[in-house]
Amino acid sequence: MSTIQDTITALATPPGVGAIGIIRISGPKAIALADALFPAKDLSEVSSHTIHLGTLRDGDVILDEVLISIFKGPHSYTKEDVIEISSHGSQFILQKILTVLVSRGARLAKPGEFTQRAFLNGRFDLAQAEAVADLIASENASMQQTAMNQMRGGFSNEIKSLREQLVHFASMIELELDFAEEDVEFADRKGLIELIDKIKTLIKSLIASFEYGNVIKNGIPTVIAGKPNAGKSTLLNALLNEERAIVSDVPGTTRDIIEDQIHIDGITFRFIDTAGIRETTDAVESIGVARTLAKMKEASLVLFVIDLENDSIDSIKEQISGLKASPVPYLLLGNKSDSGESELVELLADEKDAILISAKKKQNLEELRERLKGFITAPAQSDVVVTNARHLQSLQQTDEALNRVIEGINNQMSNDLVAQDIRSALFHLGEITGEITTDDLLENIFSKFCIGK
Amino acid sequence: MSTIQDTITALATPPGVGAIGIIRISGPKAIALADALFPAKDLSEVSSHTIHLGTLRDGDVILDEVLISIFKGPHSYTKEDVIEISSHGSQFILQKILTVLVSRGARLAKPGEFTQRAFLNGRFDLAQAEAVADLIASENASMQQTAMNQMRGGFSNEIKSLREQLVHFASMIELELDFAEEDVEFADRKGLIELIDKIKTLIKSLIASFEYGNVIKNGIPTVIAGKPNAGKSTLLNALLNEERAIVSDVPGTTRDIIEDQIHIDGITFRFIDTAGIRETTDAVESIGVARTLAKMKEASLVLFVIDLENDSIDSIKEQISGLKASPVPYLLLGNKSDSGESELVELLADEKDAILISAKKKQNLEELRERLKGFITAPAQSDVVVTNARHLQSLQQTDEALNRVIEGINNQMSNDLVAQDIRSALFHLGEITGEITTDDLLENIFSKFCIGK
Repeated sequence: MSTIQDTITALATPPGVGAIGIIRISGPKAIALADALFPAKDLSEVSSHTIHLGTLRDGDVILDEVLISIFKGPHSYTKEDVIEISSHGSQFILQKILTVLVSRGARLAKPGEFTQRAFLNGRFDLAQAEAVADLIASENASMQQTAMNQMRGGFSNEIKSLREQLVHFASMIELELDFAEEDVEFADRKGLIELIDKIKTLIKSLIASFEYGNVIKNGIPTVIAGKPNAGKSTLLNALLNEERAIVSDVPGTTRDIIEDQIHIDGITFRFIDTAGIRETTDAVESIGVARTLAKMKEASLVLFVIDLENDSIDSIKEQISGLKASPVPYLLLGNKSDSGESELVELLADEKDAILISAKKKQNLEELRERLKGFITAPAQSDVVVTNARHLQSLQQTDEALNRVIEGINNQMSNDLVAQDIRSALFHLGEITGEITTDDLLENIFSKFCIGK
Repeated sequence: MSTIQDTITALATPPGVGAIGIIRISGPKAIALADALFPAKDLSEVSSHTIHLGTLRDGDVILDEVLISIFKGPHSYTKEDVIEISSHGSQFILQKILTVLVSRGARLAKPGEFTQRAFLNGRFDLAQAEAVADLIASENASMQQTAMNQMRGGFSNEIKSLREQLVHFASMIELELDFAEEDVEFADRKGLIELIDKIKTLIKSLIASFEYGNVIKNGIPTVIAGKPNAGKSTLLNALLNEERAIVSDVPGTTRDIIEDQIHIDGITFRFIDTAGIRETTDAVESIGVARTLAKMKEASLVLFVIDLENDSIDSIKEQISGLKASPVPYLLLGNKSDSGESELVELLADEKDAILISAKKKQNLEELRERLKGFITAPAQSDVVVTNARHLQSLQQTDEALNRVIEGINNQMSNDLVAQDIRSALFHLGEITGEITTDDLLENIFSKFCIGK
């Protein structure tokens, strides 16, 4: 099935000390390599998808007591023969085993090389392979579900269906080309343009889903702004603490969570907390709210905290009008509303993008969460979401090629030219699923994977 | 086999992002729990030691595409039914799977609880169980080989053989007890004392091996001392750099290596590099070498660097005599010997614990390594090494009880009292292999394990 001749190996579990470490081997010599270190059993004789306990030895040296899992190609992840060695999770032991495997003819795998082989051997297409990396990197339910859907072929099927419709269209044009001298028209031009429009509508909805896909993948950069002592840190801590209380049910979860982000309905709000922004909050009044906000360009959302207890009505009005002049979406948070002056509280209550809260007493934070959710609109149509900038670019290029097709038909250009633009559209769709690839493209995609996948 | 009723689960791979993450489940409900999430196959029907690919689902929610490995008790690590779920290495996905398993009746495992069950179910004895943790923590070849030998029962067999000899001895004493009224002696006292002496010799050699075992396990705390600019840092870097060049053949190894240690023949030399010691090196002359060395109490070895290029003969003589007055073993390193004054070089060459080196030009570092090796003497007798302070204590208590036995026999004390001391010796030997345990002891031992093991 494959023309790949060498056998690769890598640590497949995270670095660090754990109960178990897994070393993966894939390629024509995978079984022979493991077999030579494993006197307990003849691994060339055992069935695929079986597990064998025994001592791993390099000559007289005992490397470890291990479990060996065997997957015979094509019934494996890479469709090649694959061995997984499950050893004790000491980095010393794992590196020792890798060193022995390399000394006996395996090669250390490059990042993503197992998945690259799976792709090259036809296990899945390129968009599915890319979803594997997204799945591993997934940090919340939306990321995981979107990556899972893409890995299971949801996105690829959508692209495939687009391609099929385009191929149908192309075949009619090519047919006319064959009879070019006879000047016949097998397809009426109006029908063709309707078909292209239909395809373009699908592509547009995919392109539109990227904004949501990007939010899923990268979170929403959010700034908490406001005058000094308005309660910004208290608010952040209140939001984070609730979050922590939720996740801390399962020990070990907090270990890898980046501190300043919260997940609401599977969407990550990442709090941008640059020193610069923090320092300049002291200067809010002098340089004006609008200018502070201009510095927050990288934010998609500003949570603007107003101190209803200690601030003056004029200052608050000034802050609100400054905010309204800024292009960044915002939520006004009237903080300390439980102890604020009634005049100020009413002022805030009249603003439509305002919520009255008390960060300290954790009042109304649930409403804040609801309002945050409101900033995210999932695409109504389907569960296929574009999360990958490379896919977005290919879709946009497909769309441009289709525009040229319509233009060509409308201007009664020759079928030669129209056919060329259709081929261009098919080419860009093919880039997504990997029917069209270059070594550079593959290198670029798989180098972002982790080692061992 | 076991009276344990609940089913435990834990992440068995290190935390962090990797290609693969493994969740382990053990207990009577392990297979049923996995089966309920795995529609692809009826796991209650499949053979032990087989692997199954499929989708893990919690109702309608797809958790991941996983491989499920099944081990049917007693043919598993814990001797219970064990499932290993191999999923994509996203912490989100792994925590989600754990959460679902817990919601369906599994309990999160305590550290070492799988190994504790393996011990309680008779898979191995306590000394072997403890070796599993040592194996996972092993950072060099000696640690790994010693732990491996202990895990494979080498140490336990030694203890077992001691126990058998003691039991033989005890049986003769007890027999005499049965016939106490008749005042017979089935064993001549001289023969008994010879037997006890033989046992004590074995115990002594085990106790003696602890010093080496401790070195294997914890490394040798080493201080590099000497006057400012003598070349201490250059020497450390030269030693470390060679080390790094060796390990960096395998990518990823350096990630977890603690910077200031080198491994020579599987023994770790840990360089103590406290700020205090560094600061006081400036004051070497004023406070005297001996006092500086007194501060290095925690060191087992001092590498004392002397500057043969810039120092004076009087100063060097003073440093050497200071060193000789200190109780800490040392090596004198005559640095910059290539450009040093011949008089100084000769002075050093006459010292037996001195080596002439050039740290900068990496001259004679190989001889330094050889001399460092000389500080370690592996016990000649066997490859059984005591590495565990708990075992050392039990061996010492056994030895003390045997001393009381000898005393009792020599003083012709009653067989009752002698038999009691023999039982005490047997008790302490039994503590090592876990024939005698308490909940506190087990708790103490297994709490030091990592989660998932």
